[in-house]
Amino acid sequence: MILRDPVHGLVAFERPEEQVVPALMDTPEVQRLRRIRALGVASLAFPGAEHSRFAHAVGAAHVMVRFLARVAPMARALGADQSLRPSDASDALAAALVHDLGHGPLSHLFEDVFPNARAHELWTSDLVLDPDTQVHRVLRAIDDDMPARVERLVHGVHPVTYLARAVSGTFDVDRCDYLLRDSYMSGVRYGLYDLDWLLRSLRLAPGPRGFSLAIDGSRGLPAVEGYFLARMFMYQQVYFHKATRAAEVMIRAVFARVADLVRDGVPIFGTSPALLAMARGDVVSTGTYLAMDDNTLWAALDQWSTSTDAVLSNLARRVIVRALFKTASLDDADPALDDERLSAVQNIVRAHGFDPRYHAFLDVAEVYPYERSPDISEVLHVVDDRRPPRPLESASFLIGRLHGAPFVRRRLVFPPEVRDKVLAILSP
Amino acid sequence: MILRDPVHGLVAFERPEEQVVPALMDTPEVQRLRRIRALGVASLAFPGAEHSRFAHAVGAAHVMVRFLARVAPMARALGADQSLRPSDASDALAAALVHDLGHGPLSHLFEDVFPNARAHELWTSDLVLDPDTQVHRVLRAIDDDMPARVERLVHGVHPVTYLARAVSGTFDVDRCDYLLRDSYMSGVRYGLYDLDWLLRSLRLAPGPRGFSLAIDGSRGLPAVEGYFLARMFMYQQVYFHKATRAAEVMIRAVFARVADLVRDGVPIFGTSPALLAMARGDVVSTGTYLAMDDNTLWAALDQWSTSTDAVLSNLARRVIVRALFKTASLDDADPALDDERLSAVQNIVRAHGFDPRYHAFLDVAEVYPYERSPDISEVLHVVDDRRPPRPLESASFLIGRLHGAPFVRRRLVFPPEVRDKVLAILSP
Amino acid sequence: MILRDPVHGLVAFERPEEQVVPALMDTPEVQRLRRIRALGVASLAFPGAEHSRFAHAVGAAHVMVRFLARVAPMARALGADQSLRPSDASDALAAALVHDLGHGPLSHLFEDVFPNARAHELWTSDLVLDPDTQVHRVLRAIDDDMPARVERLVHGVHPVTYLARAVSGTFDVDRCDYLLRDSYMSGVRYGLYDLDWLLRSLRLAPGPRGFSLAIDGSRGLPAVEGYFLARMFMYQQVYFHKATRAAEVMIRAVFARVADLVRDGVPIFGTSPALLAMARGDVVSTGTYLAMDDNTLWAALDQWSTSTDAVLSNLARRVIVRALFKTASLDDADPALDDERLSAVQNIVRAHGFDPRYHAFLDVAEVYPYERSPDISEVLHVVDDRRPPRPLESASFLIGRLHGAPFVRRRLVFPPEVRDKVLAILSP
Amino acid sequence: MILRDPVHGLVAFERPEEQVVPALMDTPEVQRLRRIRALGVASLAFPGAEHSRFAHAVGAAHVMVRFLARVAPMARALGADQSLRPSDASDALAAALVHDLGHGPLSHLFEDVFPNARAHELWTSDLVLDPDTQVHRVLRAIDDDMPARVERLVHGVHPVTYLARAVSGTFDVDRCDYLLRDSYMSGVRYGLYDLDWLLRSLRLAPGPRGFSLAIDGSRGLPAVEGYFLARMFMYQQVYFHKATRAAEVMIRAVFARVADLVRDGVPIFGTSPALLAMARGDVVSTGTYLAMDDNTLWAALDQWSTSTDAVLSNLARRVIVRALFKTASLDDADPALDDERLSAVQNIVRAHGFDPRYHAFLDVAEVYPYERSPDISEVLHVVDDRRPPRPLESASFLIGRLHGAPFVRRRLVFPPEVRDKVLAILSP
Repeated sequence: MILRDPVHGLVAFERPEEQVVPALMDTPEVQRLRRIRALGVASLAFPGAEHSRFAHAVGAAHVMVRFLARVAPMARALGADQSLRPSDASDALAAALVHDLGHGPLSHLFEDVFPNARAHELWTSDLVLDPDTQVHRVLRAIDDDMPARVERLVHGVHPVTYLARAVSGTFDVDRCDYLLRDSYMSGVRYGLYDLDWLLRSLRLAPGPRGFSLAIDGSRGLPAVEGYFLARMFMYQQVYFHKATRAAEVMIRAVFARVADLVRDGVPIFGTSPALLAMARGDVVSTGTYLAMDDNTLWAALDQWSTSTDAVLSNLARRVIVRALFKTASLDDADPALDDERLSAVQNIVRAHGFDPRYHAFLDVAEVYPYERSPDISEVLHVVDDRRPPRPLESASFLIGRLHGAPFVRRRLVFPPEVRDKVLAILSP
Repeated sequence: MILRDPVHGLVAFERPEEQVVPALMDTPEVQRLRRIRALGVASLAFPGAEHSRFAHAVGAAHVMVRFLARVAPMARALGADQSLRPSDASDALAAALVHDLGHGPLSHLFEDVFPNARAHELWTSDLVLDPDTQVHRVLRAIDDDMPARVERLVHGVHPVTYLARAVSGTFDVDRCDYLLRDSYMSGVRYGLYDLDWLLRSLRLAPGPRGFSLAIDGSRGLPAVEGYFLARMFMYQQVYFHKATRAAEVMIRAVFARVADLVRDGVPIFGTSPALLAMARGDVVSTGTYLAMDDNTLWAALDQWSTSTDAVLSNLARRVIVRALFKTASLDDADPALDDERLSAVQNIVRAHGFDPRYHAFLDVAEVYPYERSPDISEVLHVVDDRRPPRPLESASFLIGRLHGAPFVRRRLVFPPEVRDKVLAILSP
Repeated sequence: MILRDPVHGLVAFERPEEQVVPALMDTPEVQRLRRIRALGVASLAFPGAEHSRFAHAVGAAHVMVRFLARVAPMARALGADQSLRPSDASDALAAALVHDLGHGPLSHLFEDVFPNARAHELWTSDLVLDPDTQVHRVLRAIDDDMPARVERLVHGVHPVTYLARAVSGTFDVDRCDYLLRDSYMSGVRYGLYDLDWLLRSLRLAPGPRGFSLAIDGSRGLPAVEGYFLARMFMYQQVYFHKATRAAEVMIRAVFARVADLVRDGVPIFGTSPALLAMARGDVVSTGTYLAMDDNTLWAALDQWSTSTDAVLSNLARRVIVRALFKTASLDDADPALDDERLSAVQNIVRAHGFDPRYHAFLDVAEVYPYERSPDISEVLHVVDDRRPPRPLESASFLIGRLHGAPFVRRRLVFPPEVRDKVLAILSP
Repeated sequence: MILRDPVHGLVAFERPEEQVVPALMDTPEVQRLRRIRALGVASLAFPGAEHSRFAHAVGAAHVMVRFLARVAPMARALGADQSLRPSDASDALAAALVHDLGHGPLSHLFEDVFPNARAHELWTSDLVLDPDTQVHRVLRAIDDDMPARVERLVHGVHPVTYLARAVSGTFDVDRCDYLLRDSYMSGVRYGLYDLDWLLRSLRLAPGPRGFSLAIDGSRGLPAVEGYFLARMFMYQQVYFHKATRAAEVMIRAVFARVADLVRDGVPIFGTSPALLAMARGDVVSTGTYLAMDDNTLWAALDQWSTSTDAVLSNLARRVIVRALFKTASLDDADPALDDERLSAVQNIVRAHGFDPRYHAFLDVAEVYPYERSPDISEVLHVVDDRRPPRPLESASFLIGRLHGAPFVRRRLVFPPEVRDKVLAILSP
């Protein structure tokens, strides 16, 4: 199988141990990822960012092919017992492809809204382990234990430590692909770090739990610095963009209203059984879960926009025509006053006739430019010929200056109708 | 309004005459284009090609901004009576943004399937002229006559000839954007012609119906040659790709089956009223038409994949899990034998238990690398200081060699189950 | 050795058989190529095109690394006797790096001016075979026969046919690198064909003289078409650019004047012994030849610009301050009249006080978009599973339309002082 | 005049006030910049980095065109008295083009070696003010006062403050071009900041000395952060690269030896009068100074490599065949020990028979990621609608973390022959 990809160019899965990728690609569970946008509602702010989790999953598998091509010879050089077996490679490729399988509609948005909702990682586990999914069958047809191994590997657990870290860790293939892809598609070029050089800079270094990934200190620092800065820029520019965050707040408000109505026994016309079950907090089957994707969600929004519940219909309609809530930055303000300000905004929207539960929010977004792992065995080290391994933050001037404190965006979010009143309370 | 775009970089609509673009962007009719993929099912072959008609519409409006910035000073230099008025610019920008408004689900696929289906261009006219659409209201709020002017301009009719051609012609902003965008997103780099140089190469030349677009012969030939070659490559590589074409054939087969069932009075569970109306060949309202997008179509395919009609459920399921029909090229074969071969394939599929109406096809795709317009007033001319205007095919070595004959792809399309039997009849 | 390259990104020579490349790179003969610009005087028209033959040589060696990585597994699959030995790889890499070693100042310009001047290919042979060069010593230190093998391989002669073609043939690594590099550096993006896909499309096909390079018909046609179109565009745009050609004509006129003065016994102050020897038509040693590079040539032009010979000083000064001769295209004129027109221009310049030998020229540049090799064993074939091999021009629509006729540019070249008079004789 | 440029794409100087650029480009003083590489010896480490100061000068003028297009409407909006006059634009364009006119061979290397050598900026002033240069004549032909105005502007002095800063300041067009160009050519992509967005982010803000350049706080922070990080990366990766620095140390050693020999009255065969005069510390004329470029320097190195002075010939030969000195990093060592370590290395090289004056060095390179100007009127401010202007380091998370401390590289530099001995003294 050879594909073209806007991010990576030529993408090929040609070796025997790579054949698990095309086999998995044609399962309905993986094809479903075509109908889930990787960046959720960010395309409301960045019209180009319409790529799906499917394109990202294929990209992650491709980065894993490149990772294995780079690391396998280094592993062989460490001795026969450290060599990667073909089944290790297949496990890693399968895990790279299915790592996002459990995502619900609009990616991350879905899982933190409904009562009893489960993290997408748990759904991924279920889908890999459920003997009724095609993904499970494809893996089991290769090896009875493969579903269980792949499920563990998706969660970063594998006897070969550095392989586990390549699936789930600081430089995992997931991040490596999504930073490039989100950057490329959003048109925000700051995320385009140098993947070639980063892969070339990887080393295997002995650690407390076998060999782990490290960075070549003689050439690799700029690549790894560029990677973390790219990540930082993408958070600043795209993931924390005010329109993205406002849209996310609104979608959550819609879901919250739906859940509240369901809880109160109010019928909501046109809502699919799967969504209703989620809204009730029921346990749902994998089949029911899989029936939900971005399409069903947008169809539901369409229906909800004509609901007899005025709050729901109004919120849904705003999302559909991209009439987004406004934001006011609190970044220069004292955090101790945040709650007080949120209360003030709640009062303003209430006075304007809006229900503050769905129309006034304090949105806090936070990311660390570089986080040293608390687990000593996972700290990223820089190695070279002449010196003992050094933690990245000691070896790199840039990371040394940037690590240890988070980048934070605090914002009030509210309907445009009350914008002037909200700005007034923020003026000195 | 300033946006980032993966194709054009920074996209801004800042001048007064450009404000029609952001105003139109926030209408539900234009927002609906977010839910229609520009390349229909081509993302089954090119996973990155998931961009929507919305992103393309904004790109086309951006190219129009650049076109106007280039051409307006040339027009002024021709005399006050040739100058573009601000309302001309607004008309052109609005037409660029809404030119695709009438597209149904999966873009071009939709309109050639159902009985009495109308071309998307007619729907665009309806949507612009219908006083109930937000698009209409936005235009009329600027000027009572604007909806009518924009509707005509979308069809290439305008007193300023070269403006009409920029909306609908050889180098229209639609093509200028989609070639770049489809190329960028599919990862097929052959479509990346040099837009900067092409715009710089434009000239206004006197013609039988006022000034028309022409090419600067001293510098512009490579840009225009590159443009036509880019188009040619995109047809060869993407639009005529065997997987793209096979998927299109399958979608049409699904629709045909639905239409046949509806005609025969067979109930089809889960089909939306709008789709049913289309399948019956009913006249549908603009509101009903607008209710259909890629989401509703994929939701319908999902439903159809569990239909009690075995033909429909089987076809729908294949589309959903990307189990595409196979193709066999007839490009080296005598076209006179095509019908005979299609019959042979129909017999093969019938013998295999398939209904040949939905499982055996002859697919012919054809494009001219360069077509000289039959209308003398629209022939593209090359102009320079020293010589009389020459038609492009005379001035350009490459176009001179390439024009006049079509590039053709003829293929048999059939289920993979009969692949060996079909290839057997094609062997010498 | 790992390098960064603007064209290829990360360039590495890390395997044992690749170590010949860094060893050769540090010889004075290869380092000298840093002082010879790849495109000669083209940077007068394209200011960015200042790259050296050294950067190109490294790029060609890098493309050979990639070629070997692609072809070696295919060769192994054909049987042990077809496998590439490490020494074959080293030969090929060395040949790729040194293929241009014999270039004189300003690349191609130098060799067709002086009496008895030898083609740069002959100088390359001399430099590889001369036991006093470091290049020779580096090769002989690996294997006594290596200098002789590399010398033959540079000329396309090697027992492994496809390896010979990769050094000197339709897709040789020389062309593969220079098209990309010249395109990238000149800013003329039309030359950026898809090298990844081209390499991926290569096949080995049995032929009359062992296996030869062929193209995969199922995927490779666009890559090879793009390659030939890129080449065509680079000729049209850069190599045949009117300013490039005018500057070349002027440099040749300078050399011709120097040679004429030398022949007449006129002393020319400031001319290096090496240049004087060349101008006299003497046989020069490799050491003397190597002493000449772009620097010595520009230093000579500087000196000549203050010569007491008015013709020489005037011509040299024009080159130095880029006061280029003008050109008038004859592309629309009857070639039968070319000589007559040249005579007319000679009369015009003579009447203006210029010596026509150095101030009036007919410049004819010609290239075929695709040339089928007259040697049947070298014709490029397209292969696939289902059909017998087909010559490229039969398999490809584009090449089928473009091959067989040359692209020609005919121009009169003359000093700007006579421009109006020359244009007058060309007017109808 | 329209050009293609690898960095900026299409470069055009078409308006009347821009005509000073093509006029200056064809002067011998500007054409000489073609023979001076922008990055000096960095191409020994980055083979692609062979671009000249000429290409950079044209690029800087192009950035000025774009700067003026962006700033002129903002200036007009501030009132008629703040509008830029055409002569202001011409001054700025001329200053952008000639800002580097005074560079000697190998750019920055030349000026800090010879006794009494003058900074290139002073030579630029001389060349602009000297009535015998063509540059002076071109400027004076436009306006008698233009040479004086342009000379002052090159030094950042002009009544329009923000114009002065655009020629010489934090974001001057010089830096804007060279960061992109050096990055593009070296293949080190980290320098590719977003120029489009940076220009779009510029604002004019009132200050103590008229309006000065500021940054739009609502959109511009990432662009300006990206710019400073790009600069930081280029220093780390290219300008401070160990091979670049080692080569610079060696060239300085060669010059020092030449100067010492000249001072001692030792004749040096083959050295041009201009170089000899510089080595003697004589005052040289502009004509003599202009006679020196990279060509004359490499020709001198060639001659010196055969000198009878063993130190000179040995050093020159090493440079020519790129047999560079080695470096040992002191970055982890206590700076207080640097002098002691340099002494130790001097002893080692002396013991090895080398003269330590030319063979043992402590090389210290230092750059600040962001320097707040000590002059309050030049501090870069961030402005938006809602808050008072804030200094960049307060408004930006990244700059806030990075500013205030320098990035430093300290290295010992010595011949490869003593490498093991030097490393031994550095081991713990």
